Amino acid sequence: MSTRTFQHKNTCNTGIDQLTIIMYIMETKEITYQHIKQRRTFLKALTLFGSASLYALLSPMKSSAAINASHHEDGKLILGMVVFDGFQLLDVFGPLDVFGSLRDKVSIIIIGEKGEFAISSAGPILKLDYTFTNAPKIDILMIPGGRGTRREVQNETFINEFRKLAIAAPKVATICTGSAILARTGLLDGHKATTNKRAYVWATSQSDKVIWVPEARWVEDGKFFTSSGISAGIDMALGLIANMFGKETAVKIANGAEYVWNDDPNRDPFAKMNGLIK
Amino acid sequence: MSTRTFQHKNTCNTGIDQLTIIMYIMETKEITYQHIKQRRTFLKALTLFGSASLYALLSPMKSSAAINASHHEDGKLILGMVVFDGFQLLDVFGPLDVFGSLRDKVSIIIIGEKGEFAISSAGPILKLDYTFTNAPKIDILMIPGGRGTRREVQNETFINEFRKLAIAAPKVATICTGSAILARTGLLDGHKATTNKRAYVWATSQSDKVIWVPEARWVEDGKFFTSSGISAGIDMALGLIANMFGKETAVKIANGAEYVWNDDPNRDPFAKMNGLIK
Repeated sequence: MSTRTFQHKNTCNTGIDQLTIIMYIMETKEITYQHIKQRRTFLKALTLFGSASLYALLSPMKSSAAINASHHEDGKLILGMVVFDGFQLLDVFGPLDVFGSLRDKVSIIIIGEKGEFAISSAGPILKLDYTFTNAPKIDILMIPGGRGTRREVQNETFINEFRKLAIAAPKVATICTGSAILARTGLLDGHKATTNKRAYVWATSQSDKVIWVPEARWVEDGKFFTSSGISAGIDMALGLIANMFGKETAVKIANGAEYVWNDDPNRDPFAKMNGLIK
Repeated sequence: MSTRTFQHKNTCNTGIDQLTIIMYIMETKEITYQHIKQRRTFLKALTLFGSASLYALLSPMKSSAAINASHHEDGKLILGMVVFDGFQLLDVFGPLDVFGSLRDKVSIIIIGEKGEFAISSAGPILKLDYTFTNAPKIDILMIPGGRGTRREVQNETFINEFRKLAIAAPKVATICTGSAILARTGLLDGHKATTNKRAYVWATSQSDKVIWVPEARWVEDGKFFTSSGISAGIDMALGLIANMFGKETAVKIANGAEYVWNDDPNRDPFAKMNGLIK
């Protein structure tokens, strides 16, 4: 079973909570998500013991990566991926797969504007962990591209809420046309950035104050990392890992994923293919 | 909003259903999943009109890709991705992203053993569309790898149910250690196959009757497509698309994803890196 802890949104910032501890017990017993639902009554009874006594009981096991509901308190960074209906699958899960190799250092959370789910453009449905209004402080903020960006650049609430998260985050990364949303916040103004090469004209039209770079696999400028289309997010995520944790770590993760990493942010065969350079 | 239709499991095989039509209306009005939940009462009232009258009302718009709840009836193939707790994100979403470019030809569904969700090894939670017991007939069956495979190879119910789907499916593809599960069914016996190069000893130990190929990005043998670790699933999926729809289609999808496709199933730098060949 995954080391993921099932966070209750209203308990996520209250330190080590009952549910986290119960999840730890379940993990050690290989109890799955299905069991959890079936045993809700059992859970309710168990939580009555209160967090203090359970914490004391389980403290020898606390160092496990399984206990990560109070993210910052366990010393991990929080990677927050913002999604929306019509997100592109690989934009989200390429970067999250490589960061998923850093479970001891980074916790991944999924954030949406509201509700419980976001539907990808290809069909599969992703569960949200948080909404804009209750998301914890993010260390690494990411946003994907996809058809839904065409709607969200017109969605003032989305842009304003995303802007708040992006201002507060020490690292902000966009994949594909996710840069169109970041550009729309105005935060990219005066910064170098890139985006999808096939949707280049539309994406770059979101701000003429951004220094758009047509030939780039990804662009790093201060805290902003922006990638080219879809699969480029994987290369950029590895670049971000190299920036934060060293290149050796990034190479190790790429090799573990049997991925031939294009580690040169300037090597971009798709700019020419799409007529953006000669 | 996504063109996905929200299928009710108990209506999915009843032809064009009310919910599909309502979803179509919502899509044309850019109503999102969130609205749907909020307007459940409205939906319930609307479904009372019955499918026949709504169908008649909407028939001029029926050609839209938005109407795809009764998969086979709309002429599309069904790609069924089987998941489990502890699946590897990129194993699932690399192949689904490339097949997601064929929305006019292929519908994607997510299948699990039971329950409503599967939790990836990295944390994000995926919603199931079907379980083994109510899944429709699958045209392209896929299964990822990930830490959860270590548990599922011991899960007789999972293996038996997956075996039934694999027998019935015209194409069966495994990513990474997903081949360990397929090997466990016995269906790969006498066939050539490959798997993750770092977990090679464990995965290949699931059957000594499979002709395991240590140096291969992916292996095609009859209806079985098996890929090497994690990112290799993208290359294999493009190979499967080339097999089914022509190489030109696969190249076009790769270029659209700005992905440098390793289109040679024999080109595998990770066999040597992991000491499987000299």
